[in-house]
Amino acid sequence: MSSIPDPAAGTGQSLKLVHHSVSTGCRYVRLIFGEYSQQIELIEEKFWQRRPQFLSLNPAGELPVFVENNVEPISGAIVIGEYLDETRGALMREKRLMPEKPYQRAEVRRLVEWFLVKMEAEVVHYLAGERVLKLLKSQQEGGGPPDVGTLRAGRINLKNHMRYISHLASTRNWLAGAQISHADMACAAVISILDYLGEISWGDEPALKEWYARMKSRPSFRVLLSDKIVGLAPVSHYVDLDF
Amino acid sequence: MSSIPDPAAGTGQSLKLVHHSVSTGCRYVRLIFGEYSQQIELIEEKFWQRRPQFLSLNPAGELPVFVENNVEPISGAIVIGEYLDETRGALMREKRLMPEKPYQRAEVRRLVEWFLVKMEAEVVHYLAGERVLKLLKSQQEGGGPPDVGTLRAGRINLKNHMRYISHLASTRNWLAGAQISHADMACAAVISILDYLGEISWGDEPALKEWYARMKSRPSFRVLLSDKIVGLAPVSHYVDLDF
Repeated sequence: MSSIPDPAAGTGQSLKLVHHSVSTGCRYVRLIFGEYSQQIELIEEKFWQRRPQFLSLNPAGELPVFVENNVEPISGAIVIGEYLDETRGALMREKRLMPEKPYQRAEVRRLVEWFLVKMEAEVVHYLAGERVLKLLKSQQEGGGPPDVGTLRAGRINLKNHMRYISHLASTRNWLAGAQISHADMACAAVISILDYLGEISWGDEPALKEWYARMKSRPSFRVLLSDKIVGLAPVSHYVDLDF
Repeated sequence: MSSIPDPAAGTGQSLKLVHHSVSTGCRYVRLIFGEYSQQIELIEEKFWQRRPQFLSLNPAGELPVFVENNVEPISGAIVIGEYLDETRGALMREKRLMPEKPYQRAEVRRLVEWFLVKMEAEVVHYLAGERVLKLLKSQQEGGGPPDVGTLRAGRINLKNHMRYISHLASTRNWLAGAQISHADMACAAVISILDYLGEISWGDEPALKEWYARMKSRPSFRVLLSDKIVGLAPVSHYVDLDF
Protein backbone atom coordinates (compact mmCIF):
# COMPACT_ATOMS: atom_id res chain seq x y z
CA MET A 1 0.00 0.00 0.00
CA SER A 2 3.02 2.26 0.47
CA SER A 3 3.82 2.14 -3.25
CA ILE A 4 1.30 4.85 -4.22
CA PRO A 5 2.48 8.41 -3.63
CA ASP A 6 0.38 10.45 -1.27
CA PRO A 7 -0.65 13.53 -3.31
CA ALA A 8 -0.57 15.67 -0.18
CA ALA A 9 2.91 14.68 1.05
CA GLY A 10 6.24 16.40 0.54
CA THR A 11 7.39 19.28 -1.63
CA GLY A 12 10.67 17.99 -3.13
CA GLN A 13 11.18 17.87 -6.91
CA SER A 14 10.06 14.45 -8.08
CA LEU A 15 8.40 12.79 -11.03
CA LYS A 16 6.50 9.59 -10.44
CA LEU A 17 4.59 7.41 -12.85
CA VAL A 18 2.09 4.86 -11.61
CA HIS A 19 2.34 2.27 -14.37
CA HIS A 20 2.32 -1.34 -15.47
CA SER A 21 4.84 -2.85 -17.87
CA VAL A 22 2.14 -4.42 -20.06
CA SER A 23 0.26 -1.16 -20.66
CA THR A 24 0.54 0.54 -24.03
CA GLY A 25 -0.27 3.96 -22.59
CA CYS A 26 2.42 3.64 -19.90
CA ARG A 27 5.11 2.70 -22.43
CA TYR A 28 4.03 5.66 -24.59
CA VAL A 29 4.48 8.10 -21.73
CA ARG A 30 7.81 6.55 -20.66
CA LEU A 31 9.17 6.98 -24.19
CA ILE A 32 8.25 10.68 -24.18
CA PHE A 33 9.91 11.17 -20.77
CA GLY A 34 12.97 9.38 -22.16
CA GLU A 35 13.09 11.57 -25.28
CA TYR A 36 13.07 14.65 -23.05
CA SER A 37 15.78 13.11 -20.79
CA GLN A 38 13.53 13.19 -17.73
CA GLN A 39 14.14 10.62 -15.00
CA ILE A 40 10.92 9.25 -13.55
CA GLU A 41 10.32 6.95 -10.64
CA LEU A 42 8.15 4.01 -11.70
CA ILE A 43 5.55 2.63 -9.30
CA GLU A 44 3.89 -0.57 -10.45
CA GLU A 45 0.13 -0.88 -10.03
CA LYS A 46 -1.91 -4.03 -10.63
CA PHE A 47 -4.66 -1.86 -12.06
CA TRP A 48 -7.14 -4.74 -12.47
CA GLN A 49 -7.38 -5.01 -8.66
CA ARG A 50 -9.03 -1.53 -8.53
CA ARG A 51 -7.55 -0.73 -5.10
CA PRO A 52 -9.35 2.18 -3.38
CA GLN A 53 -6.05 4.05 -2.98
CA PHE A 54 -5.43 3.80 -6.72
CA LEU A 55 -9.02 4.84 -7.56
CA SER A 56 -8.55 7.92 -5.38
CA LEU A 57 -5.66 8.92 -7.67
CA ASN A 58 -7.64 8.20 -10.85
CA PRO A 59 -11.36 7.48 -10.49
CA ALA A 60 -11.33 6.04 -14.03
CA GLY A 61 -9.17 3.20 -12.64
CA GLU A 62 -6.81 3.37 -15.62
CA LEU A 63 -3.07 3.73 -16.12
CA PRO A 64 -0.85 5.67 -16.37
CA VAL A 65 -1.05 8.29 -13.63
CA PHE A 66 1.66 10.95 -13.46
CA VAL A 67 2.43 12.69 -10.16
CA GLU A 68 4.71 15.71 -10.33
CA ASN A 69 6.18 17.13 -7.13
CA ASN A 70 3.57 15.24 -5.11
CA VAL A 71 0.79 17.59 -6.21
CA GLU A 72 -2.42 16.61 -7.98
CA PRO A 73 -2.14 13.58 -10.26
CA ILE A 74 -2.60 13.73 -14.05
CA SER A 75 -4.29 10.66 -15.51
CA GLY A 76 -4.40 9.06 -18.93
CA ALA A 77 -1.72 8.54 -21.57
CA ILE A 78 -3.04 11.04 -24.11
CA VAL A 79 -3.66 13.69 -21.44
CA ILE A 80 -0.16 13.23 -19.97
CA GLY A 81 1.33 13.37 -23.49
CA GLU A 82 -0.32 16.76 -24.14
CA TYR A 83 0.81 18.00 -20.72
CA LEU A 84 4.41 16.97 -21.43
CA ASP A 85 4.28 18.74 -24.79
CA GLU A 86 3.08 21.94 -23.13
CA THR A 87 5.46 21.84 -20.15
CA ARG A 88 8.56 20.23 -21.77
CA GLY A 89 8.17 19.82 -25.53
CA ALA A 90 7.39 23.48 -26.19
CA LEU A 91 10.87 24.34 -24.83
CA MET A 92 12.75 21.70 -26.84
CA ARG A 93 12.96 23.43 -30.24
CA GLU A 94 13.81 20.86 -32.96
CA LYS A 95 13.67 18.01 -30.42
CA ARG A 96 9.98 18.72 -29.73
CA LEU A 97 7.82 15.66 -30.44
CA MET A 98 4.84 17.67 -31.72
CA PRO A 99 4.84 19.74 -34.93
CA GLU A 100 4.09 23.46 -34.80
CA LYS A 101 1.21 23.68 -37.30
CA PRO A 102 -2.32 22.82 -36.13
CA TYR A 103 -3.10 20.66 -39.14
CA GLN A 104 0.05 18.57 -38.66
CA ARG A 105 -0.65 18.35 -34.94
CA ALA A 106 -4.09 16.96 -35.80
CA GLU A 107 -2.47 14.23 -37.90
CA VAL A 108 -0.14 13.29 -35.01
CA ARG A 109 -3.11 13.20 -32.62
CA ARG A 110 -5.17 11.08 -35.04
CA LEU A 111 -2.42 8.47 -35.11
CA VAL A 112 -1.74 8.58 -31.37
CA GLU A 113 -5.44 7.83 -30.83
CA TRP A 114 -5.28 5.12 -33.51
CA PHE A 115 -2.47 3.28 -31.70
CA LEU A 116 -3.38 3.92 -28.06
CA VAL A 117 -7.15 3.46 -28.39
CA LYS A 118 -8.04 1.54 -31.55
CA MET A 119 -5.05 -0.82 -31.90
CA GLU A 120 -4.96 -1.23 -28.14
CA ALA A 121 -8.63 -2.33 -28.09
CA GLU A 122 -8.50 -4.48 -31.22
CA VAL A 123 -5.10 -6.16 -30.77
CA VAL A 124 -3.17 -5.58 -27.50
CA HIS A 125 -6.21 -5.99 -25.27
CA TYR A 126 -6.78 -9.43 -26.80
CA LEU A 127 -3.21 -10.73 -27.13
CA ALA A 128 -1.54 -9.27 -24.05
CA GLY A 129 -4.78 -9.63 -22.11
CA GLU A 130 -4.94 -13.37 -22.77
CA ARG A 131 -1.23 -14.19 -22.77
CA VAL A 132 0.09 -11.91 -20.01
CA LEU A 133 -2.61 -10.45 -17.78
CA LYS A 134 -4.35 -13.80 -17.33
CA LEU A 135 -0.96 -15.17 -16.25
CA LEU A 136 -0.46 -12.40 -13.70
CA LYS A 137 -4.00 -12.46 -12.30
CA SER A 138 -5.18 -14.82 -9.60
CA GLN A 139 -8.07 -17.12 -10.44
CA GLN A 140 -10.43 -14.82 -8.51
CA GLU A 141 -9.19 -11.87 -10.55
CA GLY A 142 -9.98 -13.63 -13.84
CA GLY A 143 -6.66 -15.38 -14.37
CA GLY A 144 -6.27 -18.68 -16.18
CA PRO A 145 -5.27 -20.14 -19.55
CA PRO A 146 -5.65 -17.96 -22.68
CA ASP A 147 -8.83 -18.26 -24.73
CA VAL A 148 -7.98 -19.56 -28.19
CA GLY A 149 -10.81 -17.74 -29.97
CA THR A 150 -9.79 -14.39 -28.47
CA LEU A 151 -6.16 -14.95 -29.52
CA ARG A 152 -7.29 -15.76 -33.07
CA ALA A 153 -9.41 -12.59 -33.26
CA GLY A 154 -6.50 -10.46 -32.00
CA ARG A 155 -4.12 -11.95 -34.56
CA ILE A 156 -6.52 -11.32 -37.45
CA ASN A 157 -6.90 -7.70 -36.31
CA LEU A 158 -3.12 -7.42 -35.97
CA LYS A 159 -2.66 -8.31 -39.66
CA ASN A 160 -4.95 -5.45 -40.70
CA HIS A 161 -3.16 -3.00 -38.42
CA MET A 162 0.27 -4.15 -39.66
CA ARG A 163 -0.83 -3.40 -43.23
CA TYR A 164 -1.82 0.13 -42.23
CA ILE A 165 1.37 0.85 -40.25
CA SER A 166 3.50 -0.57 -43.06
CA HIS A 167 1.72 1.76 -45.48
CA LEU A 168 2.59 4.72 -43.22
CA ALA A 169 6.21 3.55 -42.73
CA SER A 170 6.78 3.08 -46.46
CA THR A 171 5.32 6.45 -47.52
CA ARG A 172 6.63 8.73 -44.76
CA ASN A 173 9.98 9.26 -43.02
CA TRP A 174 8.33 9.02 -39.59
CA LEU A 175 4.77 7.77 -39.11
CA ALA A 176 3.04 11.16 -39.03
CA GLY A 177 5.31 12.93 -41.53
CA ALA A 178 8.83 14.29 -41.92
CA GLN A 179 9.59 14.65 -38.20
CA ILE A 180 9.57 12.15 -35.35
CA SER A 181 6.52 12.74 -33.12
CA HIS A 182 4.19 11.40 -30.45
CA ALA A 183 2.75 9.15 -33.19
CA ASP A 184 6.03 7.20 -33.39
CA MET A 185 6.12 6.88 -29.60
CA ALA A 186 2.55 5.52 -29.55
CA CYS A 187 3.16 2.98 -32.29
CA ALA A 188 6.47 1.87 -30.76
CA ALA A 189 4.70 1.38 -27.42
CA VAL A 190 2.21 -1.00 -29.04
CA ILE A 191 4.77 -2.82 -31.19
CA SER A 192 7.20 -3.30 -28.28
CA ILE A 193 4.57 -5.23 -26.30
CA LEU A 194 3.58 -7.37 -29.29
CA ASP A 195 7.23 -7.98 -30.18
CA TYR A 196 8.05 -9.08 -26.61
CA LEU A 197 5.34 -11.71 -27.09
CA GLY A 198 6.72 -12.80 -30.47
CA GLU A 199 3.52 -11.74 -32.27
CA ILE A 200 5.24 -9.70 -35.02
CA SER A 201 6.43 -11.43 -38.23
CA TRP A 202 9.27 -9.11 -39.16
CA GLY A 203 10.11 -10.90 -42.42
CA ASP A 204 6.92 -9.62 -44.06
CA GLU A 205 7.36 -5.95 -43.20
CA PRO A 206 10.67 -4.41 -44.43
CA ALA A 207 9.61 -0.73 -44.17
CA LEU A 208 8.11 -1.22 -40.71
CA LYS A 209 11.17 -3.17 -39.57
CA GLU A 210 13.48 -0.37 -40.71
CA TRP A 211 11.35 2.19 -38.80
CA TYR A 212 11.29 0.02 -35.66
CA ALA A 213 15.07 -0.51 -35.80
CA ARG A 214 15.48 3.29 -35.77
CA MET A 215 13.10 3.56 -32.80
CA LYS A 216 14.82 0.73 -30.90
CA SER A 217 18.24 2.35 -31.22
CA ARG A 218 17.11 5.57 -29.52
CA PRO A 219 18.30 6.04 -25.91
CA SER A 220 14.67 6.52 -24.78
CA PHE A 221 13.96 2.91 -25.74
CA ARG A 222 16.46 1.29 -23.36
CA VAL A 223 14.11 1.32 -20.37
CA LEU A 224 11.49 -0.61 -22.32
CA LEU A 225 13.97 -3.23 -23.51
CA SER A 226 15.05 -3.97 -19.94
CA ASP A 227 11.45 -4.58 -18.76
CA LYS A 228 10.76 -8.18 -17.87
CA ILE A 229 7.37 -9.76 -17.31
CA VAL A 230 7.41 -12.17 -14.37
CA GLY A 231 7.09 -15.73 -15.65
CA LEU A 232 7.24 -14.86 -19.35
CA ALA A 233 10.59 -14.32 -21.11
CA PRO A 234 10.65 -12.14 -24.25
CA VAL A 235 11.38 -13.61 -27.71
CA SER A 236 15.11 -13.97 -28.35
CA HIS A 237 15.36 -10.92 -30.67
CA TYR A 238 13.43 -8.56 -28.34
CA VAL A 239 16.47 -6.61 -27.13
CA ASP A 240 18.55 -6.92 -30.34
CA LEU A 241 18.98 -3.64 -32.19
CA ASP A 242 19.81 -5.70 -35.30
CA PHE A 243 16.91 -8.15 -35.45
CA MET B 1 -23.01 8.93 -52.57
CA SER B 2 -22.76 12.60 -53.47
CA SER B 3 -23.17 13.61 -49.83
CA ILE B 4 -19.48 13.15 -48.97
CA PRO B 5 -17.22 16.04 -49.94
CA ASP B 6 -14.44 15.22 -52.36
CA PRO B 7 -11.25 16.29 -50.52
CA ALA B 8 -9.66 17.28 -53.83
CA ALA B 9 -12.48 19.51 -55.10
CA GLY B 10 -12.94 23.27 -54.85
CA THR B 11 -11.17 26.03 -52.98
CA GLY B 12 -14.09 28.10 -51.61
CA GLN B 13 -14.35 28.85 -47.88
CA SER B 14 -16.46 26.12 -46.37
CA LEU B 15 -16.74 24.09 -43.17
CA LYS B 16 -18.30 20.66 -43.39
CA LEU B 17 -18.90 18.09 -40.71
CA VAL B 18 -19.62 14.49 -41.58
CA HIS B 19 -21.75 13.48 -38.63
CA HIS B 20 -24.65 11.53 -37.19
CA SER B 21 -27.23 12.95 -34.80
CA VAL B 22 -26.86 10.04 -32.35
CA SER B 23 -23.09 10.41 -31.96
CA THR B 24 -21.68 11.90 -28.77
CA GLY B 25 -18.49 13.04 -30.49
CA CYS B 26 -20.42 14.82 -33.24
CA ARG B 27 -22.60 16.70 -30.77
CA TYR B 28 -19.47 17.71 -28.84
CA VAL B 29 -17.87 19.20 -31.94
CA ARG B 30 -21.08 20.95 -33.01
CA LEU B 31 -21.34 22.62 -29.60
CA ILE B 32 -17.78 23.97 -29.90
CA PHE B 33 -18.50 25.30 -33.40
CA GLY B 34 -21.64 26.92 -32.01
CA GLU B 35 -19.77 28.54 -29.12
CA TYR B 36 -17.34 30.06 -31.62
CA SER B 37 -20.26 31.21 -33.85
CA GLN B 38 -19.04 29.14 -36.79
CA GLN B 39 -21.61 27.93 -39.32
CA ILE B 40 -20.96 24.40 -40.49
CA GLU B 41 -22.64 22.33 -43.14
CA LEU B 42 -23.75 18.98 -41.72
CA ILE B 43 -23.51 15.85 -43.86
CA GLU B 44 -25.14 12.78 -42.35
CA GLU B 45 -23.26 9.49 -42.56
CA LYS B 46 -24.64 6.09 -41.59
CA PHE B 47 -21.23 5.18 -40.21
CA TRP B 48 -22.17 1.57 -39.43
CA GLN B 49 -22.42 0.88 -43.17
CA ARG B 50 -18.65 1.47 -43.55
CA ARG B 51 -19.00 2.83 -47.10
CA PRO B 52 -15.65 2.84 -48.98
CA GLN B 53 -16.02 6.57 -49.71
CA PHE B 54 -16.41 7.27 -45.98
CA LEU B 55 -13.47 5.01 -45.08
CA SER B 56 -11.32 6.93 -47.56
CA LEU B 57 -12.06 10.07 -45.50
CA ASN B 58 -11.36 8.34 -42.18
CA PRO B 59 -9.84 4.84 -42.29
CA ALA B 60 -10.88 4.36 -38.65
CA GLY B 61 -14.50 4.41 -39.87
CA GLU B 62 -15.56 6.72 -37.05
CA LEU B 63 -17.40 10.03 -36.73
CA PRO B 64 -17.07 12.98 -36.79
CA VAL B 65 -14.92 14.03 -39.75
CA PHE B 66 -14.31 17.75 -40.27
CA VAL B 67 -13.48 19.05 -43.75
CA GLU B 68 -12.29 22.64 -43.95
CA ASN B 69 -12.11 24.36 -47.34
CA ASN B 70 -12.26 20.96 -49.05
CA VAL B 71 -8.69 20.12 -48.03
CA GLU B 72 -7.60 17.10 -46.04
CA PRO B 73 -10.14 15.83 -43.51
CA ILE B 74 -9.55 15.89 -39.73
CA SER B 75 -11.04 12.89 -37.91
CA GLY B 76 -12.13 12.22 -34.37
CA ALA B 77 -13.97 14.35 -31.83
CA ILE B 78 -11.04 14.93 -29.46
CA VAL B 79 -8.64 15.67 -32.33
CA ILE B 80 -11.09 18.14 -33.92
CA GLY B 81 -11.65 19.76 -30.51
CA GLU B 82 -7.90 20.38 -30.09
CA TYR B 83 -7.70 21.71 -33.65
CA LEU B 84 -10.58 24.13 -33.02
CA ASP B 85 -8.89 25.33 -29.83
CA GLU B 86 -5.66 26.02 -31.71
CA THR B 87 -7.25 27.64 -34.78
CA ARG B 88 -10.26 29.40 -33.17
CA GLY B 89 -10.18 29.18 -29.38
CA ALA B 90 -6.72 30.68 -29.03
CA LEU B 91 -8.07 33.90 -30.62
CA MET B 92 -11.21 34.13 -28.47
CA ARG B 93 -9.73 35.57 -25.26
CA GLU B 94 -12.18 35.06 -22.36
CA LYS B 95 -14.58 33.13 -24.64
CA ARG B 96 -11.94 30.43 -25.18
CA LEU B 97 -13.17 27.00 -24.10
CA MET B 98 -9.76 25.81 -22.86
CA PRO B 99 -7.91 27.28 -19.87
CA GLU B 100 -4.43 28.76 -20.30
CA LYS B 101 -2.49 26.76 -17.70
CA PRO B 102 -1.23 23.27 -18.61
CA TYR B 103 -2.43 21.68 -15.38
CA GLN B 104 -5.95 23.04 -15.83
CA ARG B 105 -5.90 21.99 -19.48
CA ALA B 106 -5.03 18.46 -18.33
CA GLU B 107 -8.10 18.44 -16.07
CA VAL B 108 -10.33 19.55 -18.98
CA ARG B 109 -8.82 16.83 -21.20
CA ARG B 110 -9.27 14.18 -18.52
CA LEU B 111 -12.98 14.95 -18.32
CA VAL B 112 -13.45 15.23 -22.09
CA GLU B 113 -11.98 11.73 -22.39
CA TRP B 114 -14.15 10.58 -19.49
CA PHE B 115 -17.36 11.67 -21.25
CA LEU B 116 -16.49 10.96 -24.89
CA VAL B 117 -14.70 7.65 -24.35
CA LYS B 118 -15.61 6.11 -20.99
CA MET B 119 -19.23 7.25 -20.55
CA GLU B 120 -19.81 6.75 -24.29
CA ALA B 121 -18.60 3.13 -24.06
CA GLU B 122 -20.30 2.30 -20.75
CA VAL B 123 -23.63 4.09 -21.21
CA VAL B 124 -24.42 5.71 -24.60
CA HIS B 125 -23.12 2.78 -26.65
CA TYR B 126 -25.54 0.51 -24.78
CA LEU B 127 -28.62 2.72 -24.49
CA ALA B 128 -28.53 4.65 -27.78
CA GLY B 129 -27.08 1.60 -29.54
CA GLU B 130 -30.01 -0.58 -28.51
CA ARG B 131 -32.80 1.99 -28.61
CA VAL B 132 -31.80 4.13 -31.63
CA LEU B 133 -29.17 2.53 -33.85
CA LYS B 134 -30.94 -0.83 -33.92
CA LEU B 135 -34.06 1.07 -35.01
CA LEU B 136 -32.21 2.84 -37.83
CA LYS B 137 -30.29 -0.23 -39.06
CA SER B 138 -31.69 -2.77 -41.48
CA GLN B 139 -31.88 -6.37 -40.31
CA GLN B 140 -28.73 -7.19 -42.33
CA GLU B 141 -26.92 -4.31 -40.60
CA GLY B 142 -27.77 -5.69 -37.15
CA GLY B 143 -31.07 -3.88 -36.59
CA GLY B 144 -33.90 -5.26 -34.52
CA PRO B 145 -35.50 -4.97 -31.09
CA PRO B 146 -33.36 -3.77 -28.15
CA ASP B 147 -31.71 -6.37 -25.95
CA VAL B 148 -33.08 -6.09 -22.42
CA GLY B 149 -29.87 -7.22 -20.70
CA THR B 150 -27.80 -4.62 -22.54
CA LEU B 151 -30.27 -1.86 -21.60
CA ARG B 152 -30.12 -2.94 -17.96
CA ALA B 153 -26.31 -2.86 -17.95
CA GLY B 154 -26.29 0.62 -19.55
CA ARG B 155 -28.76 1.95 -16.96
CA ILE B 156 -26.72 0.60 -14.04
CA ASN B 157 -23.60 2.23 -15.48
CA LEU B 158 -25.55 5.47 -16.01
CA LYS B 159 -26.35 5.67 -12.28
CA ASN B 160 -22.65 5.51 -11.39
CA HIS B 161 -21.78 8.16 -13.97
CA MET B 162 -24.61 10.43 -12.80
CA ARG B 163 -23.21 10.28 -9.26
CA TYR B 164 -19.79 11.37 -10.53
CA ILE B 165 -21.14 14.20 -12.70
CA SER B 166 -23.39 15.41 -9.87
CA HIS B 167 -20.34 15.49 -7.61
CA LEU B 168 -18.52 17.67 -10.16
CA ALA B 169 -21.56 19.91 -10.72
CA SER B 170 -22.10 20.46 -6.99
CA THR B 171 -18.46 21.27 -6.16
CA ARG B 172 -17.46 23.41 -9.18
CA ASN B 173 -19.02 26.28 -11.10
CA TRP B 174 -18.45 24.48 -14.42
CA LEU B 175 -17.47 20.82 -14.63
CA ALA B 176 -13.70 21.30 -14.93
CA GLY B 177 -13.43 24.38 -12.72
CA ALA B 178 -14.31 28.06 -12.61
CA GLN B 179 -14.62 28.58 -16.38
CA ILE B 180 -16.80 26.89 -18.99
CA SER B 181 -14.70 24.52 -21.11
CA HIS B 182 -14.58 21.61 -23.54
CA ALA B 183 -15.47 19.39 -20.55
CA ASP B 184 -18.92 21.00 -20.33
CA MET B 185 -19.42 20.55 -24.07
CA ALA B 186 -18.49 16.86 -23.84
CA CYS B 187 -20.79 16.17 -20.89
CA ALA B 188 -23.67 18.11 -22.48
CA ALA B 189 -23.22 16.09 -25.67
CA VAL B 190 -23.67 12.84 -23.73
CA ILE B 191 -26.52 14.11 -21.55
CA SER B 192 -28.43 15.56 -24.52
CA ILE B 193 -28.62 12.14 -26.20
CA LEU B 194 -29.64 10.38 -22.98
CA ASP B 195 -32.21 13.11 -22.20
CA TYR B 196 -33.73 12.84 -25.70
CA LEU B 197 -34.31 9.18 -24.85
CA GLY B 198 -35.84 9.99 -21.46
CA GLU B 199 -33.05 8.14 -19.61
CA ILE B 200 -32.25 10.95 -17.14
CA SER B 201 -34.18 11.23 -13.85
CA TRP B 202 -33.86 14.96 -13.26
CA GLY B 203 -35.65 14.93 -9.90
CA ASP B 204 -32.71 13.17 -8.24
CA GLU B 205 -30.00 15.54 -9.44
CA PRO B 206 -30.55 19.23 -8.52
CA ALA B 207 -26.94 20.42 -9.07
CA LEU B 208 -26.65 18.60 -12.37
CA LYS B 209 -30.04 19.91 -13.49
CA GLU B 210 -29.02 23.48 -12.71
CA TRP B 211 -25.80 23.01 -14.74
CA TYR B 212 -27.69 21.45 -17.67
CA ALA B 213 -30.28 24.27 -17.65
CA ARG B 214 -27.40 26.75 -18.06
CA MET B 215 -25.96 24.68 -20.92
CA LYS B 216 -29.35 24.32 -22.64
CA SER B 217 -29.97 28.06 -22.62
CA ARG B 218 -26.77 28.80 -24.56
CA PRO B 219 -27.23 29.72 -28.24
CA SER B 220 -24.83 26.91 -29.22
CA PHE B 221 -27.33 24.39 -27.92
CA ARG B 222 -30.19 25.31 -30.27
CA VAL B 223 -28.95 23.12 -33.12
CA LEU B 224 -28.95 20.06 -30.88
CA LEU B 225 -32.46 20.72 -29.58
CA SER B 226 -33.85 20.86 -33.13
CA ASP B 227 -32.35 17.46 -34.06
CA LYS B 228 -34.95 14.79 -34.61
CA ILE B 229 -34.33 11.06 -34.85
CA VAL B 230 -36.48 9.46 -37.56
CA GLY B 231 -39.14 7.28 -35.95
CA LEU B 232 -38.34 8.25 -32.36
CA ALA B 233 -39.74 11.45 -30.81
CA PRO B 234 -37.85 13.02 -27.88
CA VAL B 235 -39.28 13.10 -24.35
CA SER B 236 -41.66 16.02 -23.86
CA HIS B 237 -39.20 18.16 -21.83
CA TYR B 238 -36.27 17.69 -24.27
CA VAL B 239 -36.50 21.18 -25.80
CA ASP B 240 -37.76 22.99 -22.68
CA LEU B 241 -35.25 25.39 -21.16
CA ASP B 242 -37.27 25.19 -17.94
CA PHE B 243 -37.60 21.43 -17.41
